[in-house]
Amino acid sequence: MNIKITREGGPDGTRPTNEEKAQLIAGVSSLLQDVLNKDPKTTFVVIDEVALEDWGIGELPVMQYRTKS
Amino acid sequence: MNIKITREGGPDGTRPTNEEKAQLIAGVSSLLQDVLNKDPKTTFVVIDEVALEDWGIGELPVMQYRTKS
Amino acid sequence: MNIKITREGGPDGTRPTNEEKAQLIAGVSSLLQDVLNKDPKTTFVVIDEVALEDWGIGELPVMQYRTKS
Amino acid sequence: MNIKITREGGPDGTRPTNEEKAQLIAGVSSLLQDVLNKDPKTTFVVIDEVALEDWGIGELPVMQYRTKS
Amino acid sequence: MNIKITREGGPDGTRPTNEEKAQLIAGVSSLLQDVLNKDPKTTFVVIDEVALEDWGIGELPVMQYRTKS
Amino acid sequence: MNIKITREGGPDGTRPTNEEKAQLIAGVSSLLQDVLNKDPKTTFVVIDEVALEDWGIGELPVMQYRTKS
Repeated sequence: MNIKITREGGPDGTRPTNEEKAQLIAGVSSLLQDVLNKDPKTTFVVIDEVALEDWGIGELPVMQYRTKS
Repeated sequence: MNIKITREGGPDGTRPTNEEKAQLIAGVSSLLQDVLNKDPKTTFVVIDEVALEDWGIGELPVMQYRTKS
Repeated sequence: MNIKITREGGPDGTRPTNEEKAQLIAGVSSLLQDVLNKDPKTTFVVIDEVALEDWGIGELPVMQYRTKS
Repeated sequence: MNIKITREGGPDGTRPTNEEKAQLIAGVSSLLQDVLNKDPKTTFVVIDEVALEDWGIGELPVMQYRTKS
Repeated sequence: MNIKITREGGPDGTRPTNEEKAQLIAGVSSLLQDVLNKDPKTTFVVIDEVALEDWGIGELPVMQYRTKS
Repeated sequence: MNIKITREGGPDGTRPTNEEKAQLIAGVSSLLQDVLNKDPKTTFVVIDEVALEDWGIGELPVMQYRTKS
């Protein structure tokens, strides 16, 4: 499982907290267990933090997209 | 979000059902909304089915690994 | 460069044509050359066709999402 | 769409500029629209900057490869 | 570890054999163990077979590239 | 070839050394040449260093997983 999320949020707005990342890891692991009976011991999760300027949608970097929409 | 899962399961054991995939899509989207307040409308999920011979762990293709462990 | 696209389109609606894929390969290669002066000879492109049931947005598989929106 | 590029270039040679990244995002989005009629609003682009020591070709890290070729 | 290889080779030229894939899985696992002392039990390998028309280099699909070079 | 490894190791424990990365690049390239006769000149390797908090296994961030097991 590869989770790509923008580098924002958390208490100072710069990135998600380690606690939030732990919740994502636990959440996707139990989701795979519930839906497909996958063993959490062999469920790998990698989180990629993506800088805002590296995330594009609607032909724009996400910050410009958000301002426009 | 990229979910890589082995091509197995489902009623005939050959692959997950479309219903299970829909549950994964809904599950990871609401997880990202709950934990990081991400908007589901801009949350993309891609599921990769991986043939069993293409999935390795413990130096072995997964079927051999399961037999051995 | 990894391009993930849904498995649809083309003359019979089942998938993009090889000609369209060749256009994508040429297009992204010259884009990287124009913007960042990258050498096409060392620009790799991999196209992933993703089955419609494996592509999720807005908490739904894309076909259901399109019907709903 | 995932674009992996080496962490170089730009005015001080250390990395591409945000403007160049915006051009890549716009370029690949309109390419997908032109070739496959994809809606830019549901076209996601993620750019990965890769450190030079993490990029290998011809059995060598790219800087050594460039010196040799 | 994600290994992307073109869908060719093997006895009938259509794809790598399962035996070759097992060699790749074993090889990268022991490489990571030798170089970085990684535990093979927690080393995951996923092999992606890529259709020839989906693999681009030098602005061309790989078959055209090979014919040209 | 995409190698994802945790950001640890090396002389000060913070990350793999450039020499180790060069060994990985050379190792996977010659493995592909040995097993599938791939030309090293067109074998691309990208190494992703993953922060420990971004790597999950067994429903836990890897550091917690290691402490628990």
